[in-house]
Parts: sequence; structure tokens; C-alpha cells
Amino acid sequence: MTNKYSSADAVEQAFYAAFANCDIAAMELVWDSDDVLCIHPGSSPISGHNAVMRGWTEILSNAELPNLQFKVLNRVATSDLAVHVVEEHISPRDGTLAAAIVLATNVYRRTDAGWLIVEHHASATRAQHEHHTLQ
Amino acid sequence: MTNKYSSADAVEQAFYAAFANCDIAAMELVWDSDDVLCIHPGSSPISGHNAVMRGWTEILSNAELPNLQFKVLNRVATSDLAVHVVEEHISPRDGTLAAAIVLATNVYRRTDAGWLIVEHHASATRAQHEHHTLQ
Repeated sequence: MTNKYSSADAVEQAFYAAFANCDIAAMELVWDSDDVLCIHPGSSPISGHNAVMRGWTEILSNAELPNLQFKVLNRVATSDLAVHVVEEHISPRDGTLAAAIVLATNVYRRTDAGWLIVEHHASATRAQHEHHTLQ
Repeated sequence: MTNKYSSADAVEQAFYAAFANCDIAAMELVWDSDDVLCIHPGSSPISGHNAVMRGWTEILSNAELPNLQFKVLNRVATSDLAVHVVEEHISPRDGTLAAAIVLATNVYRRTDAGWLIVEHHASATRAQHEHHTLQ
């Protein structure tokens, strides 16, 4: 009962703070205990709390602290479920690389333990180049 | 009132049928009229019904009829909102190319006109190669 996020926005803030700080313990607190799914850019889906946390642990323990900014582009919500489309700008803090732009669909659910994240689907965008194809 | 989809699964079937048949009129019927967002693989988000339909019209009018199969990997739902993670296998019908695997998060909303799609976030996967990075 150390954290009870009162809204989708609150747990979203905590998720991105954990990501930006490479804080594995904080990351664990924002995910629901069951029935969760995570897709990292270009990767296959990871299902289940333990497997999702193994993925984040691998990422966060190997990363330099990133410069991470995010902007919510779209919200769809009912009283118990919220879906946010988020644009993430991720770059090294030393300024050696331009920010990568990642698009994420994040799904938050209201549980007895407050709002928690149940899905994160992240994908890379092609820089500037807009052309729609089937694949 | 020509179509009232009674469930998220029903409108999902109609969405993929429209996609597989390159049927622009059918595609228009499955999208909600307002507040919709679509991300094609690698592309920037498209917001609004008309812009989303322009994107699909561009894709479907230029495509050969694809071989398209889909499998729902995960469902999260409340009475009015449903989020499905779907694995799409898309290939030319002439068998000249292996299927591309696309992951999609689809969001469906129960409206007065039945269940409709409000978000489609599709992204490509790297074939077989699993390595998690920040970007």
C-alpha cells in the first residue's frame, strides 16, 4: 500500500519517472500484478508481470540515464480503463544524439490498489518520412 | 443504421475483413465518427475520422489484395471500452514474400451506434531478433 495512484495520469507520471531514472523498483510498482503485456519497439510482446519486469530490468540496468520527455496525444477513458497515446522523446543526456521519437499506447486500469499500467505498446517512427504502406 | 456491431470482437472481424478486401466503404463503417487515432507502422499518428480515412484510402486503393490473418493475443475490457493486442500476418496472395508480422493495439468503444474502432496502433516487428533497447 505504499503507492495508490489516484488516476491514469498519476500512474503515467510515475511510469515515465521510473523510466527516466532507470529505477527498476519504481517501475515494478506501476505495473498491475496480473494480465499485463509490454511491447518494446520492434520486439515481440512480453506477457505477465514477471516477464515484463525482466524486460524492463534488462533495459534499465543497461541504460545510461536518458533524457526523456513525453506528451499525451490522445486519451480515451471510461471510469475503470484509460488508453493514452503518448509521444516519447528519448535521447542521451550528453547530447550526442538527436532524440528518438517513440509512439506508445499505454493502457491503465483502476484496481483495488489504485490505477496501474496493464499495457505498454511502444514503436519507433521513421524520421519525418511519411508514407503509408500495408507493412 | 446499416451496421451495429454488438461486440468488440464483431467490429474487429469487420475491420480485418475490410482490410483484407481493400474495401474502403466497409473500412469507413467500422471507425467511430469522432475522436479517433490511427498509427500505421513507422508513421506519425493520424487524428480525426476524415484524416484516418484518407490514410486508409491511400493504403487500400494502392494495395493488391493481401493475405491477412490475425490472432488476438490479449484482451482488456470494461463494459464500454475494449483493448485488444493483435498479431497480424500480412503477405501478398501470390506467395512471393514471407508474411510480415505486424503488432497492433486496437481500441474499441461501445457507442449508440454499436461497438466501433477508435484507435489502431500498428508497428512492425524485427524478424525473430529479440533485443531490448531504449529506442
